[in-house]
Amino acid sequence: MSTALDLFALDRAGQDLLFRAARTANTFTDEPVTDAQVAAIHELVRYGPTAFNGQPLRMLLLRSASARARLLPYLSSGNRGKTAAAPLTAVLTADLDFHHRLPELFPHRPQAGEWLGDPVARAAQARFNATLQIGYLLVGVRAAGLAAGPMAGFDTEGVRREFFPDGRHEVLLLLNIGRPGREVRPERLPRLSTEEVIRVA
Amino acid sequence: MSTALDLFALDRAGQDLLFRAARTANTFTDEPVTDAQVAAIHELVRYGPTAFNGQPLRMLLLRSASARARLLPYLSSGNRGKTAAAPLTAVLTADLDFHHRLPELFPHRPQAGEWLGDPVARAAQARFNATLQIGYLLVGVRAAGLAAGPMAGFDTEGVRREFFPDGRHEVLLLLNIGRPGREVRPERLPRLSTEEVIRVA
Repeated sequence: MSTALDLFALDRAGQDLLFRAARTANTFTDEPVTDAQVAAIHELVRYGPTAFNGQPLRMLLLRSASARARLLPYLSSGNRGKTAAAPLTAVLTADLDFHHRLPELFPHRPQAGEWLGDPVARAAQARFNATLQIGYLLVGVRAAGLAAGPMAGFDTEGVRREFFPDGRHEVLLLLNIGRPGREVRPERLPRLSTEEVIRVA
Repeated sequence: MSTALDLFALDRAGQDLLFRAARTANTFTDEPVTDAQVAAIHELVRYGPTAFNGQPLRMLLLRSASARARLLPYLSSGNRGKTAAAPLTAVLTADLDFHHRLPELFPHRPQAGEWLGDPVARAAQARFNATLQIGYLLVGVRAAGLAAGPMAGFDTEGVRREFFPDGRHEVLLLLNIGRPGREVRPERLPRLSTEEVIRVA
């Protein structure tokens, strides 16, 4: 295993911070997560690749008690308490009309937006690429020394109607962000082996 | 900007390696990408979170000329030459029957697999979580000092029929992997600002 580690350009501390030692957090300290921290994370992870450089991910940050109160009714019971107590909750969405920006974001092929004229195909592209960006974002939260608590257990349609009534956004995931609390974490869940995941043709 | 950098726990070299200095590669050196390298990347990024710890991502590696020849007819013309020349191409898929492993992967809630009995809902879960894992994988390729060339321009149904005739997998993305060639890279495409991506409620 130590030879495998030698294959990396990223040092061991970075590998551990982002993956091996990182854990999903269910409790957080009271320390606020500032807009400057979120901006710094975004300014880093926005360089991750997306198709047509389309960058469809959009985030709504819920910090105030009143904003949080609008979200909580849509959560599964198991997600409600930890979300009420987290310093920050991000609603992660895909902009279904991301193609309007392509003439500027993908200037060498200004016609790319036209290929995305079909709303169903465009929504699939928006969803796929925003989800890739959520992967980068989770890594970025950890790079900032924070912990993430992603949650899929909620009424996505309800959250969409409550916060994005324009119909232009699809809600993909909720993400609590903060310094991890002192909870006793359960043993790490098993991961699939390389043999189970990777085949060579 | 320098204050923003100070917010990170990951050092500047790591930030640059994974995001700021990393670029999508269209040409590669002849240096092979070994199975040991791919296994090391997988053994790192498999710790990224997925819903129900379901880990639906499956990868098929195409290295030999004969395996590559089976893929090329399904690629858009712009992707064919660079894929023929890349040291390794990974076909990234979602296992639509990932729920069969949940009793083992998510043992404290063995009934989770039953919630995923509906094939349409399960496919959406498989697709979403495998895509998150592709985000982690792209970061992991860069952590290994390699460059990635993700490609969405191909006949996904054709590739599925050619390599995954069992109907159990959905093909999501192709990924060329290798040491970046000496190509002159075009100027970096623009990224959206924090104000364009993030709102505070």
